[in-house]
Amino acid sequence: MTINGTNGTTNGTNGTNGTKSKYDPNFTQHVIDLMSPETKPRHREILSSLIRHLHDFCREVELTQDEWIIGVNYVNSIGQAWKKNRNEAWRVCDILGVESLVDEINHKVETADGVNPTSSTILGPFWSPDTPFRELGSSVVQNMPPDGELTFFHGVISDAETGKPIPDAVFDMWQASTNGKYDVFDPENQTRHNLRGKFRTDKDGKFSFYCLKPTEYAIDTSGPSAELLRLMGRHPWRPAHIHMMVTHPDYIGVTAQLYPRDDQYLETDTVCAVKEDLLLDFKPVQNEPNGATLDCEYDVRLLSKKYKPDSSMLMQNANQSRF
Amino acid sequence: MTINGTNGTTNGTNGTNGTKSKYDPNFTQHVIDLMSPETKPRHREILSSLIRHLHDFCREVELTQDEWIIGVNYVNSIGQAWKKNRNEAWRVCDILGVESLVDEINHKVETADGVNPTSSTILGPFWSPDTPFRELGSSVVQNMPPDGELTFFHGVISDAETGKPIPDAVFDMWQASTNGKYDVFDPENQTRHNLRGKFRTDKDGKFSFYCLKPTEYAIDTSGPSAELLRLMGRHPWRPAHIHMMVTHPDYIGVTAQLYPRDDQYLETDTVCAVKEDLLLDFKPVQNEPNGATLDCEYDVRLLSKKYKPDSSMLMQNANQSRF
Repeated sequence: MTINGTNGTTNGTNGTNGTKSKYDPNFTQHVIDLMSPETKPRHREILSSLIRHLHDFCREVELTQDEWIIGVNYVNSIGQAWKKNRNEAWRVCDILGVESLVDEINHKVETADGVNPTSSTILGPFWSPDTPFRELGSSVVQNMPPDGELTFFHGVISDAETGKPIPDAVFDMWQASTNGKYDVFDPENQTRHNLRGKFRTDKDGKFSFYCLKPTEYAIDTSGPSAELLRLMGRHPWRPAHIHMMVTHPDYIGVTAQLYPRDDQYLETDTVCAVKEDLLLDFKPVQNEPNGATLDCEYDVRLLSKKYKPDSSMLMQNANQSRF
Repeated sequence: MTINGTNGTTNGTNGTNGTKSKYDPNFTQHVIDLMSPETKPRHREILSSLIRHLHDFCREVELTQDEWIIGVNYVNSIGQAWKKNRNEAWRVCDILGVESLVDEINHKVETADGVNPTSSTILGPFWSPDTPFRELGSSVVQNMPPDGELTFFHGVISDAETGKPIPDAVFDMWQASTNGKYDVFDPENQTRHNLRGKFRTDKDGKFSFYCLKPTEYAIDTSGPSAELLRLMGRHPWRPAHIHMMVTHPDYIGVTAQLYPRDDQYLETDTVCAVKEDLLLDFKPVQNEPNGATLDCEYDVRLLSKKYKPDSSMLMQNANQSRF
């Protein structure tokens, strides 16, 4: 009979780590073994690991019943806060670093010689499939806010192994305006495609455009995700950032966010999505022909698709509303 | 700067287990360290362990972004299914064995000599604080269903160490009717307090009453918890059971469920709450003075409160509606 034993194992050892446990050492395996032989292998793999870690967590902290009930109520509250354009479970994952970790798991790539492309980081909810191509050197600023700082943004996209420039790569960018809002969520102040643009690199792998110096903004603090932040004594701010999605048919794409190097929230980003090679330097310029007051240069390194032939830029299920 | 590193650790080791990881070995600690110094120690302990296990789970199964989105949507769906008398997060916990595990963590008790009291198992949602005391030997069956099997249920409550009977202990019992429903959820067929009763042991520690042989029932299969069961190839059935909550001022209380030994769902209980010393033998009897067709004897062992002075029977937050 494989039902749960009654005798304590106070003096026994629990599993492979040799530490003593007073709890039934067979219980977790019992729950896992309830899965039928017909369970799909990937479902079995994921659920077995989930059950094991969930149980280990409960035992490790010796979760009290009251604490467990608080957790049960919290999980219920997440879905209750869900509505169109507000995906509360997604936010909770972000705060716990899960989206950023899943991004790394899915996009980390390195050659045998240790060559890395530009780091990936989370896509975020505001990418648009409809962003128009624009001429190199043109501006994405359709609606200039009074406090906007026009920036000339330019760089080279090159092969991370050979250093050779990559012509015809696409640099797709999007950013919030100085009020922290993206075009589609701010119809009163912004026209469609404001602060969005796709740019195709020239024969020397170069791209350039005018945009705004990005502005910090806080995530929504009205729901259960904000309760979690308060419990942890954390702020709700994201560092200022410009999103980019770089693609080319022969190269592994890179989706990332680029942050001003002097942003105060780099180390404490509420969604844990900052990486060292994604930092930008905004340099003051004078008498720029199109009126920019800042210059920003950022180069992108891509790796050949041969290192990850099945790579795709987007999640199949990414068309979920999020914030 | 403690922001996330960019270089892979393909050839490094990750943490204490010596296995190689290609992922940033500092990321999880980075997320944990976002907690402020003012975070309460218990919150820090619980959230650190939660983050660690959540991240280890993602890395262990190399969760894809599509799988992660499925998980995000699933968590949202749990709270969306919540309503009065339907606590979906609680059900999901039950299916994953978490309620049963938390019960063990909180109620497992054993003397230095290895003496155990009767096992505890989950309270369930149907205990009532208003159940009336009844005379020893009386019946809890106020509404006899046509297919009910009247059972004479009796036993002795004794000290697990000394074997001495315990007078004035309270045996509080409740059970579903043959349709799988408890009185408060079945007002058409059952009067209030049907199949519930409290019994005080006599000077010899004995208790006795008439009840029904319990009947198996399935948990609700209309929501996300049932999706999880289907994914695991599991059925929604609970073995038949009689609930008991045994208390005495000088002893550690025991809350448990008692199951017919021949029940087909003992090993696959959907909420994983069966233990070997909680099994009942129902023996046919003839010419029983009050018309019972079955006899069931079950003894309970309690341990002195000196082994767990702070024990209490109920969760402070247990007054949450559940099913």
